[in-house]
Formats: sequence, structure tokens, C-alpha cells
Amino acid sequence: MSNKIKIAVDAMGSDNAPIADITGSIKSIKDSKETDFDIILVGDKDKLNFELSKHNNYDKSRITIHHASDVITMKDEPALAVRSKRESSIVKGINLHKDSGADAFISAGNTGAVMAASTLILGRIKGVSRPTIAALFPSTQGFTVVADVGANVDTKPQNLYEFAVMTSIYAEQILGYINPTIALLSVGEEESKGDERTQEAYKLIKQSKLNFVGNVEGRDILGNKARVIICDGFSGNVVLKLTESIPKLLKTKLVEFSKKSLFNKIITGLSKGTLKKVLEELDYQEYGGVPLLGVNGVTIIGHGSSNEKAMKNMILKAREMVIKQVNMRIAEELSN
Amino acid sequence: MSNKIKIAVDAMGSDNAPIADITGSIKSIKDSKETDFDIILVGDKDKLNFELSKHNNYDKSRITIHHASDVITMKDEPALAVRSKRESSIVKGINLHKDSGADAFISAGNTGAVMAASTLILGRIKGVSRPTIAALFPSTQGFTVVADVGANVDTKPQNLYEFAVMTSIYAEQILGYINPTIALLSVGEEESKGDERTQEAYKLIKQSKLNFVGNVEGRDILGNKARVIICDGFSGNVVLKLTESIPKLLKTKLVEFSKKSLFNKIITGLSKGTLKKVLEELDYQEYGGVPLLGVNGVTIIGHGSSNEKAMKNMILKAREMVIKQVNMRIAEELSN
Repeated sequence: MSNKIKIAVDAMGSDNAPIADITGSIKSIKDSKETDFDIILVGDKDKLNFELSKHNNYDKSRITIHHASDVITMKDEPALAVRSKRESSIVKGINLHKDSGADAFISAGNTGAVMAASTLILGRIKGVSRPTIAALFPSTQGFTVVADVGANVDTKPQNLYEFAVMTSIYAEQILGYINPTIALLSVGEEESKGDERTQEAYKLIKQSKLNFVGNVEGRDILGNKARVIICDGFSGNVVLKLTESIPKLLKTKLVEFSKKSLFNKIITGLSKGTLKKVLEELDYQEYGGVPLLGVNGVTIIGHGSSNEKAMKNMILKAREMVIKQVNMRIAEELSN
Repeated sequence: MSNKIKIAVDAMGSDNAPIADITGSIKSIKDSKETDFDIILVGDKDKLNFELSKHNNYDKSRITIHHASDVITMKDEPALAVRSKRESSIVKGINLHKDSGADAFISAGNTGAVMAASTLILGRIKGVSRPTIAALFPSTQGFTVVADVGANVDTKPQNLYEFAVMTSIYAEQILGYINPTIALLSVGEEESKGDERTQEAYKLIKQSKLNFVGNVEGRDILGNKARVIICDGFSGNVVLKLTESIPKLLKTKLVEFSKKSLFNKIITGLSKGTLKKVLEELDYQEYGGVPLLGVNGVTIIGHGSSNEKAMKNMILKAREMVIKQVNMRIAEELSN
């Protein structure tokens, strides 16, 4: 056996499974200069072999199949599905990771099920009361990382403190932000602003070693006041989905505007390419999934609508999470 | 005395006071075809007279001055300022409204102080446990109204229910949306999604006569799934400020893009006007302030950075709130 990094890919996860999942896996092997990882596709072996047979010109020794006869769909209730669908690609893929058959797991499938299975099967890192999902937001200066963006609602101040520690480590190790600035999302800058949870979390984070810069407001998410912004998963999920929807609104408004006159139509035609370029950074496909921080393993979760580019980026992100030992560093910080 | 609508304008409120406040007041008289309202400027009489003396060509009989020697600044702590600065334009203007010397009060000053003074001096409408601020958001189909956007954090499910009733009436009376669709902001569409507060509020609103369409997500705020979206003031304030910051991000990205090549520079130059037109709807100046719903009176609150156009629109909105008797309708719905 090789001592390469093994990444288990849920091949039945995306809305376009197994096509985007498999094409993205092959793309990660063909396009990346990194060759220190292999891929294990998890899913129905007949379907996967059929899909793989359409591709050529890649190092076939780097992709193997781990059979899973069942699938958790987007409509399945997460916790229930994880318990009842033991043969699903999500449960089998995460079990493979748990049993050291893989060093990481990625999936564009049912987010809730991936979170539940990861937490249940891999367990939490010592000192972590709740795992968190951290997502990248475009900003006027590079990217901002926001956590939690939906793994947890009804969080406690202690949870927010742990999110801050985990996300700071992620931002430093994976995004290369040295001693990243950390802020709490609130409704005003002063310590006294915000709901009770945020005010209590402010005290906890202020006392820590983190590079805490205080509260920021909604307008600062796409700004540059802090590299890491911490909030409850309710607000975080709302702002993530709102930000993702901006291109759609602008497109609709642009079409409305173009319909007003021939002149507008011509001008809009000329502007379209520019706007597309500018909006590219708002496109989550580029980032390739978000990590579930705080579980005993590497899990990367992608949108159901992930395309092959997103899948490729998720695989490369998983590889980096393994190499940079993000988990070990989280354990070091939180276990005592 | 005339039986015209009298609107008290905090002339010391905006960042650019009294210039924007006074110019906007004059603009509302000169530009609007409505002549059924008069304006009472509240602030230092010498400063106001000096500023007024710069203007001509408007019906001077429609603007009077109500002297207020003190000012609550943006830095003042709201509750404290309202108690200690009895001679401030905010406190005196709202007292004038309370004593029937004016039918409405508008201010671009310290939002917290305007809310606190309105609630304290005017009191709450019977059946309203907490007043709310409702703001307009651009959407792919007209405007969406979101409440609460910052008047309340740590709300209870009952508060959200009341916000839904009040905002529905506002959307129907002022925006002309007949039996408007109402949704709760959450992290998923199912009734079981969201934090405890949202899940409980779902049950309350579902049982009501409101045109409830269930939960919507962050991506639907700028979309068209519901005309009215209800949430806690923490999330609402965050999404309001995030949405307002979008033009700034796009501008920064556009400048970055234009700097990459001469070709990009030319294309960006051509696109600028279009983008500006498209982004206009994201510009709060157009809307002219947000109402504080649930107090015994008409209070319209504007951004500190409100310009004369915003001030004018705030005055016209206050006039409409008086004519449409929004408060009376709220009382009818909630008092029993």
C-alpha cells in the first residue's frame, strides 16, 4: 500500500451525481500539480464503473471504488437517515475514514446528514462542545471567514468561543492569515451591543489569546475589519445564503434595465462580461466546499449544486487540511 | 389654524445637520404635488433661521420653527440621553407630537434615542409588547419588507407574531400590497428548521389570519417568495447592513478589475453607468427612512447620512402614514 493521502469522495452526493462528483475527482488528478493523494469513490460500484469508463487520459491507479448500495437523498431527514441507511455512501464513506481507510471525506450531498454522520461516527475533538462550519466570503480585501454558517442554532457563548478558536486556526493554516483578526458579528461595535449570547461571548473571547478586534456589523462582512467573523449558525446561515443570492438579483435588475431601451440594451451587453468577472468571487463554486471543524477527522461539505470544479477544489482542500494537521492544532488549543 | 397635517422634523439629526434636514424639508414642499402638509423644524432657532435665510422660492408659510436648545449626538447613549437632554430636538420634537402640536416626527439622528424617546413619550399601541422597525429591501420583484431590523434583540415568539401583524398592515397600507405574503426568516423551509424562537413563532403565525407562507431562507430576502419577512432584530439588522454594503464591494471589485489592463479600464468605464442604475435600488436614500411601528404616533427614522432627497422622502412617508391611519389599524388588529 502507498502512504499517499487517501480522500474518500461521496460519488452519490451532488445534484448531478455521479457525474459532477466523478468528473471533479478525475479533474483533481489531471489538473493539479500535487500527486501525493489518491481518491476512493464511494457509491454504487456499477454506476461508478459505468461513469468512469467514459473517461481516459488520467492515472487510473489513483482512483478506486468503495461500494455503497444506498443513497441518502436531499429530502431525507438527516439524523434518521444516518441511523437507517447504513449502506449509504455518506455513512460508508465516513466509516471508511473512521477506520483509517481514508484520511478525509468530502460530499456534496445532504449537508445535515454529512454533519450528523461525521459527528456521530468520527466523534468530536476533545474540548469541542459543537463542531462548526466555516465559509469564505468575498470582501474588499481578500476573503473573510464566517463561522458558524449553519451547523448550529441556539448556540451558547461557550460555543461561539470555541468557533473562534477553531476558525482562527483554520484561517491561519489553510488561508495563510497570520494571527488573523477575529470579530463577533453584532448590531453595533460597542461591547454592550447585541443579544445576550453575543455580549457574553464578547467577554469570553476578549479574555483569550485570540487576536480579537471586538464587534463588527453586517456591513463589515464584505469589508475588511476582521479576517474571521463569529456568530450563531442562524445569522451565519442567513448571511451566507443572502450573499450567494446577490448575483441573481443583479442579473434580474440588469435584464430589467436592458429592456427599457435599445441604448440600455447595447450598454448592458457591453457591461455583462465585466459584471460577470466582478461577480465571480461571489461564486461559491470557486471555493469548493466548507470544512466541518471540530470533528475527529477531515470532512468537507459542498453545495448540492457543486460542479466538477467545485468537487475538484473540495478534494484539494481536504488534502490540505490533512497535511496542515488542522485538527491536531484545534485539539492542542481546546483540550486544556 | 389650518387643519393640515403637521410634520415635526428633527432639524439637528443628520450627520450634515441642519443643512440636509432643512434643504430636504424645503424640497418636500417645492417638489411634491401634495400641499396638505406643513413642516415644523425642531432645533436651535438661530441656526435654523440662518440656514433658512439661504433659501427662497418656496411657500414660507408652510415651515415654522420649534426651538430646541440641545442636541442628542450619535455618540450619546440613547436611554441616558433621552432622560437627561430634555431640551434636545429629539425629545422636544416627540413631545410636540405627543401634545398634538404635530401629527408625526421624523429624524435622521441617533436611532436608539429616537426609538427610546418615541416608546417612552408616545407609549405603545395597546396589544404591542415591543415596537418594530421595518425596512425595504430590493428584490427580483418589487420590494420586500423585513422586520425587525434592529429595534429588538432577544425577542420572544410573541414579539415576532406582533411584528408580522404590524408589518403586514404597513405593507398593505403604505406599499399597496394586498393581503401580503408573510414569511419567517429561517435556515430551512420546513417548520422544524430554525432556532427555538423561530419554531415557536411559526406555530403562532400559522394559527393567525395572516397570509403566512412559511419559512424562507437568506437567499429569499432579495427574491420574491414573500412580501414581508419577519425575524429577530439581530438577524434583521445584520442583513440590512450587509445588503447596504453590496454596492461598496462591487465598486471595489470593479476598480480592481479595471486596473488589470487598458481594455478592462475601457470596458469598466462603459459599464459604470449601467451598474450605477442597477444598484440604485440598493440605495436607502431612495426609500427615505423606516417607520417605528407600534408606538402611539408616527415616527420615521432615517440614516445619519441621509441627504436632502432622503429627508424629503421621509417627510412624504410620514404624511402617508398619517393619512392611511396605519396606527389605528394596528390597534384594531392587536388590541383584542
